[in-house]
Amino acid sequence: MEQVRTILLNKSVLDENEQEADSLRQKLQEKGVCLVNVMSSPGAGKTTTLVSLIRSLPSLRIGVMEADIDSDVDALKVAKETGCRSVQLHTGGMCHLDAGMTAQGLEELDVDGLDLVFLENVGNLVCPAEYDTGAHLNMTILSTPEGHDKPLKYPLIYQSCDLIVVNKIDVGSYFDFDLQECVRNIRYRNESATILPISAKTGEGMEALGAYFIDYVNKIKQK
Amino acid sequence: MEQVRTILLNKSVLDENEQEADSLRQKLQEKGVCLVNVMSSPGAGKTTTLVSLIRSLPSLRIGVMEADIDSDVDALKVAKETGCRSVQLHTGGMCHLDAGMTAQGLEELDVDGLDLVFLENVGNLVCPAEYDTGAHLNMTILSTPEGHDKPLKYPLIYQSCDLIVVNKIDVGSYFDFDLQECVRNIRYRNESATILPISAKTGEGMEALGAYFIDYVNKIKQK
Repeated sequence: MEQVRTILLNKSVLDENEQEADSLRQKLQEKGVCLVNVMSSPGAGKTTTLVSLIRSLPSLRIGVMEADIDSDVDALKVAKETGCRSVQLHTGGMCHLDAGMTAQGLEELDVDGLDLVFLENVGNLVCPAEYDTGAHLNMTILSTPEGHDKPLKYPLIYQSCDLIVVNKIDVGSYFDFDLQECVRNIRYRNESATILPISAKTGEGMEALGAYFIDYVNKIKQK
Repeated sequence: MEQVRTILLNKSVLDENEQEADSLRQKLQEKGVCLVNVMSSPGAGKTTTLVSLIRSLPSLRIGVMEADIDSDVDALKVAKETGCRSVQLHTGGMCHLDAGMTAQGLEELDVDGLDLVFLENVGNLVCPAEYDTGAHLNMTILSTPEGHDKPLKYPLIYQSCDLIVVNKIDVGSYFDFDLQECVRNIRYRNESATILPISAKTGEGMEALGAYFIDYVNKIKQK
């Protein structure tokens, strides 16, 4: 009984959220602003990847929203290391972001004049995948210390994204991480997502990731 | 409005869950079985730590319940590498375990004759901390690649546990992981939890972790 009640409520909340997300996505597109939702486990390197990526894209005007349950360390790091416009969002215990929270963050960030906004979601491989934030692009980072079996264990987040970045490949061998096996496991969940291996720490693969975003922003602007 | 409705339902679900958890904890104690809830980020090394720990405790009769949204790889690994009684629980998309799911798992595992049961929760630093599973002991694993700032970002899971295992210390320096800073961050959330640094891969610190459990099981049996 208890579970049925929860699921029904959840469905109505998800429906409302989806409408809000579609409307937000449309509004951003009209302004020529591309929104990217960045998801991963805690500590997979979302912030470090964003810092390295933003530095490699000097031609784009970029903003960042950092979501955490608590602490401001990520927004401070991004602002200090890239100089770009950034805000910290506190979810107050919530395990994910939805379109309403994203819209609030965008209001505070002020997107006028920006080409690209990154939304760093709460570090969590389960709940964020269930809520459309209004982003044009969903990006999931998988880091090698987590192991190549993660797509088998957390289906939805790998199914529902467009870009999968495999981070910390410089230490993959130490963790017996098998990139080919990882790609097979990702393909089991998602046939079409772009997969890009990188090390945000050493810079390996960052050029390809930067080129991906240049191309993506151009496409959004031309639509 | 939406959020108020969700929170109220959540509260009643949590209250019911707490009663069920207390009753489960009491029943297990009467049988002399100690239940340990193991939580962490995805890929922090829950299964590898359990395998290494179980092998170091030949005098105890141990059972394991492995929870995942999907896949059986963890239960198969535990059964193959330790020979101990193990079951895989599929949460069907749920981001956490509650006392009802734990009770179902225990029924399937059959705890008669066991001293110690490990419940490996879904890899998630947010939701599992909100639900009492009925365990006597809550253990959180933090792995060095995640970074020493995690207790700042995920308050509840570090507040609500009795034992914090810092895993993968053999590679801490590569990830600029500062153990002293990590301990300070843990203490900011939790003054009394036992903190044990280990490497489940190299075996460092496993003797102390084994001794902790021998002692803990004795205490539960003498209560």
